[in-house]
Amino acid sequence: MLLHPIDLHAITSDSMTPRMIFIEEREEVKEHAEFSWILKCITTMARLGRLAQFKEKSEKLKEVPLGLYVYPVLQAADILLYKTTHVPVGEDQSQHIQLAQDLQRVFNHTYKSEVLVRPTALISDGPASRVKSLRDPAKKMSKSDPDPRSYIGLTDPPELITNKFRKALTDFTSEVSFDPENRASVSNLILIESLSTGLTPDEICERNSNIDTGKYKLVVADSVIEMLRPIQNNYHRLINEKGYLISVLRDGAERARTVANKTLSEVKKVVGLSLEY
Amino acid sequence: MLLHPIDLHAITSDSMTPRMIFIEEREEVKEHAEFSWILKCITTMARLGRLAQFKEKSEKLKEVPLGLYVYPVLQAADILLYKTTHVPVGEDQSQHIQLAQDLQRVFNHTYKSEVLVRPTALISDGPASRVKSLRDPAKKMSKSDPDPRSYIGLTDPPELITNKFRKALTDFTSEVSFDPENRASVSNLILIESLSTGLTPDEICERNSNIDTGKYKLVVADSVIEMLRPIQNNYHRLINEKGYLISVLRDGAERARTVANKTLSEVKKVVGLSLEY
Repeated sequence: MLLHPIDLHAITSDSMTPRMIFIEEREEVKEHAEFSWILKCITTMARLGRLAQFKEKSEKLKEVPLGLYVYPVLQAADILLYKTTHVPVGEDQSQHIQLAQDLQRVFNHTYKSEVLVRPTALISDGPASRVKSLRDPAKKMSKSDPDPRSYIGLTDPPELITNKFRKALTDFTSEVSFDPENRASVSNLILIESLSTGLTPDEICERNSNIDTGKYKLVVADSVIEMLRPIQNNYHRLINEKGYLISVLRDGAERARTVANKTLSEVKKVVGLSLEY
Repeated sequence: MLLHPIDLHAITSDSMTPRMIFIEEREEVKEHAEFSWILKCITTMARLGRLAQFKEKSEKLKEVPLGLYVYPVLQAADILLYKTTHVPVGEDQSQHIQLAQDLQRVFNHTYKSEVLVRPTALISDGPASRVKSLRDPAKKMSKSDPDPRSYIGLTDPPELITNKFRKALTDFTSEVSFDPENRASVSNLILIESLSTGLTPDEICERNSNIDTGKYKLVVADSVIEMLRPIQNNYHRLINEKGYLISVLRDGAERARTVANKTLSEVKKVVGLSLEY
């Protein structure tokens, strides 16, 4: 089993220059862009226009950037370039993995080759994938949510985490009880504490039987702060070691480039774009 | 004045694998694909959909390949990557040069930089640009015409050239006279002989006053065969020197890569995609 070595989550416009979508590794390995151009020639416009994520995001925009539309083909290149067999993604990405599968099939068929390998989606269905928004328990918690109070960021400082939980939605029952069907918002807080501490929902309800949900929010906040503390400590230590971080990126890019370059050479050979033919 | 060093004519599906569009230099210099991805993020879908050449070509297709749609952005990358100031193109490419100009302006404005240079179209309006189809004098002669009898290819063998002129359209007047308004088809033949031999239309009409247009077609054919002979001789000599040709491509790619790499580094720096920032 070969896992896809590159984080599929894009650094989107929130954190970067306007309308620019990129991931660091992809940016250091030119083969991604080049291979994606070859894949673009075997993709149809209709196929891309049908993708749910594109439809959802483009609907809200007055001017649709081309990057948003063609982005799934770059993702397919990210995957196929490494002959990836399994790609761990969220449910929302399964259509994009299907696109990569289609392109793999069309490419091998068109060029009568076996160069590209079929990738399979590994869709997580653990409890972590069921964590809901702090502002609306009908929606998944997502860092793309426009309201930052709806999610906890991995680098949110403790005070911010406490504030976000203080403002988290609850219901009109003051007791702490686990009932995802009828008490979605409170049960979501219990799930979050359960994931942070390893306690079961039953244990949590028992421990907090003497306080109301208002106070319980601070208990959850503390559990999340504690869980994130070692991660944040590491983050703050590393983020200042710029030279080290760049060397990690460079080493990773170098290893990725070796694999990417080999696949791209094979691709160009069967397509007829190689000077070696 | 810096001329664009790369031939803008794509090797299209006629001569290559299906739906694949590429030029040799571009294929050897990975910077083109990478830079074009950055430009895609500042292009809108509407802007590309308005381009006449895309509309005309996509209309005829049941399934529109993505490569056809995004191709003008790759062309813009070809041009801007070399800080080209002048691009010699046909009239049909002027919209694509406008796209390159727009992207140059949007890029420099968005990233508050002066990295990219505005290119200007050099549109030829010499007599050669007025040569018409041999089958329909209302249309320009074009190698993309589906009817190969309508144009002369640079490597057409002499017998084929003779045959194409034999079948060239003429009118019901047998005399050889130059009158582009009323005798477009015959005047087109005279223009072709004029361009092949350097004789003026008047000199040509005088020399051929004793033959009819049927026989005159063979005179034109011979003039074209003679003009192409040294070009074809060179072509046939070179096409067999595969090692030499590859070395020319490699040298050109190497020189292009040096320039392309420098521009792309500047681009990534202002965009914020460089590890050096």
